[in-house]
Amino acid sequence: MTRILNSYALDRWFVPEEGLVDIPSAIDGRIVARSSTRGLDMAAMVHHARTVGGPALRALTFHERADRLRALATHLTAHKDALAELAADTGATKRDNAFDIDGGIGTLFAYASRGRRELPAQRFVVDGGPEPLSRGGSFLGMHVMTPLRGVAVHVNAFNFPCWGMLEKLAPSILAGVPVITKPATATAYVAEAVVRLIVEADVLPKGALQLLCGSAGDLLDHLAGQDVLSFTGSAATSQVLRDHPAVSRQAVRFIAERDSLNAAVLGPDAAEGTPEFNLFVKEVVREMTVKAGQKCTAIRRVIVPRALEPAVIGALKAQLAAVPVGDPRREDVRMGPLASLSQRAATREAVAEIAREAEIVFGDPETVTAIGADPEAGAFMAPVLLRCPDPLRAVAPHAVEAFGPVATVMAYDDLDDAVALVAKGEGSLVASVVTADPEVAESLVFGIAAHHGRVHVLDRDCAKESTGHGSPLPGLVHGGPGRAGGGEELGGLRGVFHYLQRTAVQGSPARLSALTRTWLSGAPAPVTAEHPFRRDYDALAVGDTVETPSRVITLDDIEHFASFTGDTFYAHMNEEAAKANPFFPGRVAHGYLILSFAAGLFVDPAPGPLLANYGLDNLRFLKPVSPGDAIRVRLTVKQKQPARKPEYGEVRWDVEVFNQDGETVARYELLTMSARNTAGGRAAA
Amino acid sequence: MTRILNSYALDRWFVPEEGLVDIPSAIDGRIVARSSTRGLDMAAMVHHARTVGGPALRALTFHERADRLRALATHLTAHKDALAELAADTGATKRDNAFDIDGGIGTLFAYASRGRRELPAQRFVVDGGPEPLSRGGSFLGMHVMTPLRGVAVHVNAFNFPCWGMLEKLAPSILAGVPVITKPATATAYVAEAVVRLIVEADVLPKGALQLLCGSAGDLLDHLAGQDVLSFTGSAATSQVLRDHPAVSRQAVRFIAERDSLNAAVLGPDAAEGTPEFNLFVKEVVREMTVKAGQKCTAIRRVIVPRALEPAVIGALKAQLAAVPVGDPRREDVRMGPLASLSQRAATREAVAEIAREAEIVFGDPETVTAIGADPEAGAFMAPVLLRCPDPLRAVAPHAVEAFGPVATVMAYDDLDDAVALVAKGEGSLVASVVTADPEVAESLVFGIAAHHGRVHVLDRDCAKESTGHGSPLPGLVHGGPGRAGGGEELGGLRGVFHYLQRTAVQGSPARLSALTRTWLSGAPAPVTAEHPFRRDYDALAVGDTVETPSRVITLDDIEHFASFTGDTFYAHMNEEAAKANPFFPGRVAHGYLILSFAAGLFVDPAPGPLLANYGLDNLRFLKPVSPGDAIRVRLTVKQKQPARKPEYGEVRWDVEVFNQDGETVARYELLTMSARNTAGGRAAA
Repeated sequence: MTRILNSYALDRWFVPEEGLVDIPSAIDGRIVARSSTRGLDMAAMVHHARTVGGPALRALTFHERADRLRALATHLTAHKDALAELAADTGATKRDNAFDIDGGIGTLFAYASRGRRELPAQRFVVDGGPEPLSRGGSFLGMHVMTPLRGVAVHVNAFNFPCWGMLEKLAPSILAGVPVITKPATATAYVAEAVVRLIVEADVLPKGALQLLCGSAGDLLDHLAGQDVLSFTGSAATSQVLRDHPAVSRQAVRFIAERDSLNAAVLGPDAAEGTPEFNLFVKEVVREMTVKAGQKCTAIRRVIVPRALEPAVIGALKAQLAAVPVGDPRREDVRMGPLASLSQRAATREAVAEIAREAEIVFGDPETVTAIGADPEAGAFMAPVLLRCPDPLRAVAPHAVEAFGPVATVMAYDDLDDAVALVAKGEGSLVASVVTADPEVAESLVFGIAAHHGRVHVLDRDCAKESTGHGSPLPGLVHGGPGRAGGGEELGGLRGVFHYLQRTAVQGSPARLSALTRTWLSGAPAPVTAEHPFRRDYDALAVGDTVETPSRVITLDDIEHFASFTGDTFYAHMNEEAAKANPFFPGRVAHGYLILSFAAGLFVDPAPGPLLANYGLDNLRFLKPVSPGDAIRVRLTVKQKQPARKPEYGEVRWDVEVFNQDGETVARYELLTMSARNTAGGRAAA
Repeated sequence: MTRILNSYALDRWFVPEEGLVDIPSAIDGRIVARSSTRGLDMAAMVHHARTVGGPALRALTFHERADRLRALATHLTAHKDALAELAADTGATKRDNAFDIDGGIGTLFAYASRGRRELPAQRFVVDGGPEPLSRGGSFLGMHVMTPLRGVAVHVNAFNFPCWGMLEKLAPSILAGVPVITKPATATAYVAEAVVRLIVEADVLPKGALQLLCGSAGDLLDHLAGQDVLSFTGSAATSQVLRDHPAVSRQAVRFIAERDSLNAAVLGPDAAEGTPEFNLFVKEVVREMTVKAGQKCTAIRRVIVPRALEPAVIGALKAQLAAVPVGDPRREDVRMGPLASLSQRAATREAVAEIAREAEIVFGDPETVTAIGADPEAGAFMAPVLLRCPDPLRAVAPHAVEAFGPVATVMAYDDLDDAVALVAKGEGSLVASVVTADPEVAESLVFGIAAHHGRVHVLDRDCAKESTGHGSPLPGLVHGGPGRAGGGEELGGLRGVFHYLQRTAVQGSPARLSALTRTWLSGAPAPVTAEHPFRRDYDALAVGDTVETPSRVITLDDIEHFASFTGDTFYAHMNEEAAKANPFFPGRVAHGYLILSFAAGLFVDPAPGPLLANYGLDNLRFLKPVSPGDAIRVRLTVKQKQPARKPEYGEVRWDVEVFNQDGETVARYELLTMSARNTAGGRAAA
């Protein structure tokens, strides 16, 4: 029975009845699903996302959204075998599914962890520190980032129906922006199954996710300035979306990840027999054959020292010949078919275009042996290796993306040539540099960095654990300039920030402290009746302050501290030598003596809600302390953040140490862990 | 004599001969200059920037580029009176020039300072920390940012010929990207004079700056994926640039700052007679009249509580009536003419459009008294205040930018209404919120933040030092979503990063340490023969390490430290209470005792190149140290940075403190100042 793919709109499944389009299996061409969006009201979907999904997501803190992502990821993990089974018809082998399905779920988990660890338990992010804007300190600026009030439209490519959807979904949901996701029709049955699981998990708020299986219709007409349009696919489609009148007129945020002729460069040091030579060959073969080369990050240009070109080609041919192509469900198959017959036709056409400036040295784009399958009914294609004899003059090998198991070898004479060849790609997602020579790495990496979103330096030291040329990772940016679309995704929180608006807020210290939940110099610092260390986390307010009495630091103290700790640095011990030091007026107290005495002044010794001092940030010694100087301390709650365990909270204190003249001698931020008043209860921040 | 404006192309002044366009004075319509770019080879200019200017700028470090900006700013300062004189014909009063000329030079100074203070003395920036990518630690990632290899094309608006050019130039040059700047023709004579001074200063490398006085011709046809196009002006022109085929096809980075109907919102608390009421009225009048309202940041929508509407209108009328309009060169004039007659015609047209949904309550767009000038020969216009009776339904007052001394008052009933009214601007550069009520500020600021690049909260506390609603500042982002163009400029280094490409680099710790000049865990840490504190700054290498012997921390040590410092926190003093603490196994050593003993272990006491420990970053206590535990320290050079004074260098050390089982008990970064071997000589980093 052929499945009819449903869309998910306005929190209901929509069953299309008209305009159904057949989706054939990549393996044998039988129709596995049919889809259409005819009859869907795109305006209503956009409105639903903006008015229902957005407000519901924005009502959650980043931590709460992160927890929803984790729940989703856990639910999907439990069903990944079913997804893998379904994905076989897209041509995916078991190895391919590790990228698409496991990779997609892994990205959800990664954003769940980062959201908890790196974002505040709040609804906005403070970006950077305060900007002083006045001499007197009564006017300053801070940047905050808040969720855009629109909808994120995600238009995905056919090659990664699961990962492609989830790697866009995770940052968007974490940011607090609802999503309308549109998978490519050719493999939409996998995406639809993932969305069914997401809906079943019932952890996202109403309106947070909608799905279009089929054409996007007039969706873009309804976008406006608070919306985001994120696209992965061909340069041609990308231009159509980018130049859509609504997108252009309303300055809709547009993120594109499109054509990319990624290079792998072998260093001149990596002669035959070196580990790097072997790593290079293995990496190229892997990139040509994983997902049958249908990866936007796959290696298309194999750039090698001229002297090594024959050896590289020989080794590649040998290894490519050993790749079993066929039914992706079989254990003995390493490469499945392309996603569709039309995709194969397009790839063959691209090979023909490249072949005008290059010769085919391995494989026949028209003929293949497919294990356990009919090579003509399914979209099977043999790996094809080309060699370009004059790559500095050639055009097509640098410009035509054959989206299949296809790569072109090109030789260079020196490193400048190699850099020039890479640059002829006019912007790529990723390049690999394979060398063990530090100077080669330095020249190549900085020579090509500006053309890439990612550069993978492969050598014997990292090969065992390298995640490989072709794998975008949640913590690293994914995207590239120029031909690659100029977009940036992932990269940890960087990918989340695309869905937030950065706003500079100016005002008085009191006002900005209140707005940003961050105490700033000049804001009220009320000395609390009881020592703030005796207040539990929930009772503490930003600004709560203790001011200590002062303590004189004597020369005896300094000498004693020196002999006790062993820190007999001359600036503390020898008046003459200290005086000769450009920074000191004579013997001075140890910085750590100041810190230790400061703690002695502000500590509250008895057991209480303050449990531990777990660190210290941004300590600066600003003025030397001479024997006879007296220090005192002001300690103020700067920021609060719930800890991972609900019974604790982290408090960041602004600490300023003054001398007897009121000058600041040291300033730092103290980090403490405090108990919360509600066992297990987590108050909203 | 009418000046013929020259362009500056390929490091030569180009004198146009054909196609000259007359540029009239705003004051009296006489022709002050003529301009044309006919005959200029735009392709050659782009090529020159890319092949001469780019490489020369990229050969400098950020610090060296910052120093060039400072030299430029100093040179311009010496000639600012001449510029101001020239600017009078644009309609600028003395007050207006403080924004345009002083503001522009100030922005150069600001970026010079930031470049020195916040960027490394290198040619790339490390962005964020290392990303662990493997269990074993042999493969990880770092992000670096390097200058784009193209040219930055800056297309500016007529209203700020100096500031508009320099606020784009400074971040671009600091980033290392050459500039082709194209001022608006109407006021290009001021921009040309600024560029003449820049050329005369002779501090920028060849090819770093080119100027187009007149049409941009086919310039955009030659742009590609490493170029940046930054535009300030109308939405209509912005769309033409953004959708230009080369820009779209090649994913040229596009930054736009365009139409913006900025709002000022008065809080319900700010009744007549309060300081905030008066501040609000004063700010609106100032924004309507500075630059005759020709500021993209000017207040266009005056949003007030319904009960206060009559009072606000009354106060605005009284103050607007007192603004003397006329020849901008006169001391008794506060508002000059618009930039041109055509600009006045456009503004009158916009007023007429708004007036279909609002009534004019002050001023006549067609009539004005001009002190010392002929109001018809010059582009003079009276301030015009409108009142919109049904602003939640109205369209034009939220959408039509009357680029002159024009604003519309609209009343709201509650804060939700006020937020909705602001949102009807569909994205603005800036809004002011004028209130002394913390809850009103909270609701309004977070209610409207996502629609703005900047929100200015004005109250009695900051009024004296506030830089005002209309002033973009180098340290704060300038730009806004939606109608405002979706761009972002300035914001300190954020504005520089638009001209850099961010690239994730993956590899082994050794390789990434070498590439980023930053020691990373797992990279080689050779123990040097002599203590690294005895090596001067220039002799130190990233990775140089000292490993100390170990020292047992006894219970006596802990008790002694407690009584000496006064830090008698129970976790150090009371076994039973310490055990009850969830983080400690029993009594533990003070964190500061660990730090102090660590220093005692690694310090080298005699005078030498290490001059001072000036701070400490990212200290975390990772494991408690119990009495009887023995600690030892590994100290490794993590990063080096030349100090402001050439005789010193700053060294950042990675410090790890281990216990007897090799577990890390504390980790931090130590900051020291070290002497350099070359007195006055500054080695390239």
